[in-house]
Amino acid sequence: MTPSKIEHIGIAVANLDEAIKYWENVMGLKCYNIEEVADQKVRTAFFKIGEVKIELLEPTSEDSTIAKFIANKGQGVHHVAFKMEDTNQALTEAEEKGVRLIDKQARKGAENLNIGFLHPKSTLGVLTEFCCE
Amino acid sequence: MTPSKIEHIGIAVANLDEAIKYWENVMGLKCYNIEEVADQKVRTAFFKIGEVKIELLEPTSEDSTIAKFIANKGQGVHHVAFKMEDTNQALTEAEEKGVRLIDKQARKGAENLNIGFLHPKSTLGVLTEFCCE
Repeated sequence: MTPSKIEHIGIAVANLDEAIKYWENVMGLKCYNIEEVADQKVRTAFFKIGEVKIELLEPTSEDSTIAKFIANKGQGVHHVAFKMEDTNQALTEAEEKGVRLIDKQARKGAENLNIGFLHPKSTLGVLTEFCCE
Repeated sequence: MTPSKIEHIGIAVANLDEAIKYWENVMGLKCYNIEEVADQKVRTAFFKIGEVKIELLEPTSEDSTIAKFIANKGQGVHHVAFKMEDTNQALTEAEEKGVRLIDKQARKGAENLNIGFLHPKSTLGVLTEFCCE
């Protein structure tokens, strides 16, 4: 299993509207999609740089994992998502190699991707998402 | 100023050899370069995924900024580097837009890139590097 590309970088932000302004006005990018993922209690905004997307994540509830992340670590990079051929197969292979999984099975994420997370305690601190279409 | 791509993601690691093993064995990538940047008191290792590089950063001294980052936040994503047409021009434009800079002028970084950092207090928590060849 080798990722074909970095699909997106997930960034935790306290205020999505303010963050969209920053990425548009300072970084010169254009937000092309805003989407609420009720399941994960986040509102997301997407930008594209080359082949990689930036996904801003604003918590919609205090018990969202993103709210907890911001409370503990502050705003900033939350996860890195790698495009795999098949998320379920990649999760299985990672587990066989001793990685602790957050998701044993792929589930639906933003932009209708099939996503699964590895535990950052097993990935040297990088919260790692596998995804495929 | 618009970045043409994400040049690399910088990841702080406590032990470079152990981290290289993880990225090779679990993520299926190949380390193509190991380089010490004395100026920044780090040893770096590089991998390529699509158009983006992963740069692992191991501190070579306790007063390295990477050592301090790991002590405060743990291992994980340290910075995101954006490829710009001209680093100095991009730094100037960012400052004009109210961003606080770490580097007022580009300096040489790993892989001989011309690099400059924006302060994460101005970038909603993402330690942001601009770079060009």
